[in-house]
Amino acid sequence: MIHVGIIGALGYTGKELIHYLSRHPVVRIYKLWDNAVDKKGARIDSIFPEFKNIVNTKVEHFNKKDLDVVDVVFLALPHTVSMKIAPSILDKVSLLIDLSADYRFKSHKSYQKWYKADHLDKKNLKKAVYGLPEINRSEIKGAKLIANPGCYPTSMILGLYPLAKEGLLDNAQVIVDSKTGTSGAGRKAATGLIFSELNGNLRPYKINKHQHMPEVTAFFKDELNKSVDLSFVPQLIPINRGIISMIYTVFKNKKKKDLYGLYKKYYSKEPFIRISKKGEVTELKDVAFTNFCDLSYLDFINDNTFLIISCIDNLGKGAASQAVQNMNIALGFDEKEGLI
Amino acid sequence: MIHVGIIGALGYTGKELIHYLSRHPVVRIYKLWDNAVDKKGARIDSIFPEFKNIVNTKVEHFNKKDLDVVDVVFLALPHTVSMKIAPSILDKVSLLIDLSADYRFKSHKSYQKWYKADHLDKKNLKKAVYGLPEINRSEIKGAKLIANPGCYPTSMILGLYPLAKEGLLDNAQVIVDSKTGTSGAGRKAATGLIFSELNGNLRPYKINKHQHMPEVTAFFKDELNKSVDLSFVPQLIPINRGIISMIYTVFKNKKKKDLYGLYKKYYSKEPFIRISKKGEVTELKDVAFTNFCDLSYLDFINDNTFLIISCIDNLGKGAASQAVQNMNIALGFDEKEGLI
Amino acid sequence: MIHVGIIGALGYTGKELIHYLSRHPVVRIYKLWDNAVDKKGARIDSIFPEFKNIVNTKVEHFNKKDLDVVDVVFLALPHTVSMKIAPSILDKVSLLIDLSADYRFKSHKSYQKWYKADHLDKKNLKKAVYGLPEINRSEIKGAKLIANPGCYPTSMILGLYPLAKEGLLDNAQVIVDSKTGTSGAGRKAATGLIFSELNGNLRPYKINKHQHMPEVTAFFKDELNKSVDLSFVPQLIPINRGIISMIYTVFKNKKKKDLYGLYKKYYSKEPFIRISKKGEVTELKDVAFTNFCDLSYLDFINDNTFLIISCIDNLGKGAASQAVQNMNIALGFDEKEGLI
Amino acid sequence: MIHVGIIGALGYTGKELIHYLSRHPVVRIYKLWDNAVDKKGARIDSIFPEFKNIVNTKVEHFNKKDLDVVDVVFLALPHTVSMKIAPSILDKVSLLIDLSADYRFKSHKSYQKWYKADHLDKKNLKKAVYGLPEINRSEIKGAKLIANPGCYPTSMILGLYPLAKEGLLDNAQVIVDSKTGTSGAGRKAATGLIFSELNGNLRPYKINKHQHMPEVTAFFKDELNKSVDLSFVPQLIPINRGIISMIYTVFKNKKKKDLYGLYKKYYSKEPFIRISKKGEVTELKDVAFTNFCDLSYLDFINDNTFLIISCIDNLGKGAASQAVQNMNIALGFDEKEGLI
Repeated sequence: MIHVGIIGALGYTGKELIHYLSRHPVVRIYKLWDNAVDKKGARIDSIFPEFKNIVNTKVEHFNKKDLDVVDVVFLALPHTVSMKIAPSILDKVSLLIDLSADYRFKSHKSYQKWYKADHLDKKNLKKAVYGLPEINRSEIKGAKLIANPGCYPTSMILGLYPLAKEGLLDNAQVIVDSKTGTSGAGRKAATGLIFSELNGNLRPYKINKHQHMPEVTAFFKDELNKSVDLSFVPQLIPINRGIISMIYTVFKNKKKKDLYGLYKKYYSKEPFIRISKKGEVTELKDVAFTNFCDLSYLDFINDNTFLIISCIDNLGKGAASQAVQNMNIALGFDEKEGLI
Repeated sequence: MIHVGIIGALGYTGKELIHYLSRHPVVRIYKLWDNAVDKKGARIDSIFPEFKNIVNTKVEHFNKKDLDVVDVVFLALPHTVSMKIAPSILDKVSLLIDLSADYRFKSHKSYQKWYKADHLDKKNLKKAVYGLPEINRSEIKGAKLIANPGCYPTSMILGLYPLAKEGLLDNAQVIVDSKTGTSGAGRKAATGLIFSELNGNLRPYKINKHQHMPEVTAFFKDELNKSVDLSFVPQLIPINRGIISMIYTVFKNKKKKDLYGLYKKYYSKEPFIRISKKGEVTELKDVAFTNFCDLSYLDFINDNTFLIISCIDNLGKGAASQAVQNMNIALGFDEKEGLI
Repeated sequence: MIHVGIIGALGYTGKELIHYLSRHPVVRIYKLWDNAVDKKGARIDSIFPEFKNIVNTKVEHFNKKDLDVVDVVFLALPHTVSMKIAPSILDKVSLLIDLSADYRFKSHKSYQKWYKADHLDKKNLKKAVYGLPEINRSEIKGAKLIANPGCYPTSMILGLYPLAKEGLLDNAQVIVDSKTGTSGAGRKAATGLIFSELNGNLRPYKINKHQHMPEVTAFFKDELNKSVDLSFVPQLIPINRGIISMIYTVFKNKKKKDLYGLYKKYYSKEPFIRISKKGEVTELKDVAFTNFCDLSYLDFINDNTFLIISCIDNLGKGAASQAVQNMNIALGFDEKEGLI
Repeated sequence: MIHVGIIGALGYTGKELIHYLSRHPVVRIYKLWDNAVDKKGARIDSIFPEFKNIVNTKVEHFNKKDLDVVDVVFLALPHTVSMKIAPSILDKVSLLIDLSADYRFKSHKSYQKWYKADHLDKKNLKKAVYGLPEINRSEIKGAKLIANPGCYPTSMILGLYPLAKEGLLDNAQVIVDSKTGTSGAGRKAATGLIFSELNGNLRPYKINKHQHMPEVTAFFKDELNKSVDLSFVPQLIPINRGIISMIYTVFKNKKKKDLYGLYKKYYSKEPFIRISKKGEVTELKDVAFTNFCDLSYLDFINDNTFLIISCIDNLGKGAASQAVQNMNIALGFDEKEGLI
């Protein structure tokens, strides 16, 4: 049995990690830490009654000494907080998976630009592996520090990778129209997030200003040395979970050749990527509560514009279940363990 | 033209008042006050874009001098705040309608018990008229200070009044199972109110501890000198607006006589009460965005239990539109003006 | 008083017409027809209890003789049905407004292609005025037969018109990513439309195959003699009402000049078009239950791609309230009567 | 490995069975039957894409010969259909679990009264075991024909059983105010079930006329020889799944003794019943997608009225997961297998 601990257990990502890890056959949830509880701590199932009769681990303030008893740590912390604590954890555990953005950029300058903070752990930043298994599986095997990708970037990168890798994005322009469920905004008090404001509504926000946009362009730069001309239009819709990205790739010239085959070539053996028939679509609900990424349509909508529809669960493949997939790979388990 | 001002314009109740008053033919929204804006103020349609091309009044900090130019003031303030400001307004305007709970109790002791605050304006407390037009219409005519009823109490009192008035509640027990839309909880940042927590959910809360329960019993005591044995189980459901109260009246003895006729007798001439056929039900959506109270079923569900289903829009008949109805009556306008 | 009749009163569009017309100061809803009721008819408020105490007109089977008593007829019928009945009505009334697609195309061949039916009233097809007031106001004045625009087309045409008119779409490519509320699919029994299938979901459908796409291109061809290279990706989202179209205009060449001013020039005097500040966005909820079209962002998202966000209520500006606006103009009333 | 087959695989209950059985470690989904597919059949994951990469069994028309290869059959058929097919299946398999109402009544007369159909299999009706494990566990062990309880009855019976068993309902009156998610109404085309009709709505229906009411009273009669005076007020709310029943037990006399302990006594060892602290409540979302029944409040709300709040997932503990729990018990597996 592997002993895991989660720092930041009380946010939506932490909670979703508990959900997946509690049903993982070789994992024991050993420690849950969150400074939001009071000093004496409280059982997780008293805070989230949905876990009654399933998990009863106590949630405590983080204490470095506790690291002696865990093998794997998940950081479900806000951006800029993870990097403060990660270095001291890395020495003590076999595997650290950070679900914040702190280790996703190779360049500390890009990080600084978008997160408005100096990077405090440049040494480990270089060593971190970007945990997108379908692309980085070999680097993830045996990795010690994994930067778990953002939710929007997971949907975008998986959708665009075959095109980028084949050089097809070099002279193309990419417009991503993404809709996300509200859990993507986190479990926090904010007037703009209350039910009365979002039900019956759709809200565009941070157009071309969202921090997940540079995560995508940096990825293609770092991994493939490719520049991608990307525009990003995120939108909140009144559902709890799920991201659907309509990825419009506008090629400079007419390019009606069949690109559908590419997707089959790259992904047909992937356990967590599902390709629809050409021209068919899937619905967002089909990926809810799963680790799947559904790619559909995959056809031209006019002479030079190719449409990829990419669906994930923002808390699943976009966060917690992908972190478990990464853990499975890093530690040599069956990649699907605890996930299907 | 009547000039009106609203203090507390930026909550849901204030916003709904603006909505109704902006379409009222003899009203001009002259002043909007809310201390949540910064000192120089801001146009209401820049804060709530839904009012663009409809209302462009500036929202400002309250200033007593502004009272010189308005005839009617609505207080859409939190409980315990209204009573601090009301006395100084009363001298200056023709009509003051308070939508908080501050003037709803005749007894300052009951108020103190449930709102955990001394009443600071006992003098006016006695003079205030409880603004439930279907019951207090004659007192409302010409009133100067109107305490606009709470949302749950409106649904309950209108449902129970015929029984209470006829003495039928004297030995009965009343259980009210009420479900409210989320706007009832106000426009405020709270983790428990965010979309992700309420969508797909139903949450019971404050069982027998809700401050609207004593508002109902105090009303029957004060108006009819009747004690009502009331239990109250409020619940939040994932809709924006509306309250539906299932009112179960358990009589001590078998009492199968027809009570349906009572409702017809009391309410058939009321413009804003709609009685369904006996045994038929109405749905919550039918009252959304209206000033109606729909009463339905009105039949026994067993030998001694009578069921009244009472539906209102919590922001409409439960708050803003009822306040406008009260204004219409107090000032001698057609009661339906601006409301149908 | 104008006497109006509605054929097809029991669909969502018919119901919304009743809602708007019931509050119109110079209109009396005189006749409601729908063959879905049984032969002896039924009061509208017994079918839709929300109309109790507001409208009690009887819904009957259509009978041509009834036309003698009405001045204006609205056809809220399915496509291909309107054209069968319209010719016989036109002779008898002052104004006929058809809310189906039957009179929207100038070319009966385009109609036939997209609606899979011969056009049965080619004579009147040529005379019909496309009822988009902000563009065709002068033709609408005094018109006898008005083809009320489709919901998606209203959102698209109003968004694109300034660009098209100025010749800016001549070498551009337009991609429209539209999301609609479920009432757009009508009030009909279909497994795909039940709550359990749509709640928590987003469903793309009819990509580049939706009949509203040629309505837009035909409009620009007929009115401006312009060809628009249009791709259309409609999506169902779990809200009751509203359409938000993200309109991406990709220019062949870099074109960073300010196009925002164009929108101000074309629309600043329009009572029902609201332009946000450049780069700002509006939310879908702000147009619900209104006749407004909110245009926002209106800026480039990269060197050569201009984004227009266009929001309407699909049952309001996209159907019923726009029909009332058209009636107001055609008959010489204040254009805003009954609408604000 | 146990080979299972499902008849009626394409309704919500069938689909949910597939979901649970696909993750059951000792089960193989061997046959899926549904006459809604065409004659040549179709893979389940082409009909429900959510099952891609998880289950790819073909859905076929039922053929008795296929029974030779399965050990367990689940009937997810409409009422009155199950009893026609069950007798011929019983001979061929080890276990038959019927999720319809056909074998839930001991008395064929009660069945006939409420389902308006003669019972066609009276012989097996007597042998069937009512599959509520927390009460009938010993009978379920080794049973061959299990009648899986209805969703509302599961929530009601589990809530009331300790009181009934102790004789406390003998002179009491029970009022159940239940709210259900829309999946309870099934996956069928009906205007009343479409999103536009239910979103933003609450609809009471079949008050005291719902067929699940006599299922509860018959259970207490048959099992405990107790008559329960029950009134039942079911309501549809706009959520996908879940039932919350507010069970008001009105005792004839004041009875303030502590009944909370009873619930602890009866259920504290049950893996799928979770008791809250006295006076505390749980929320509906906590049981979604689970086999739990959460019982909460469990206290008096006035001198003689005891409130039990009972929550289940109507498709889980109210149907499919309870059927799996029954299978586990009947076949001697760990009761929790595949369920937590």
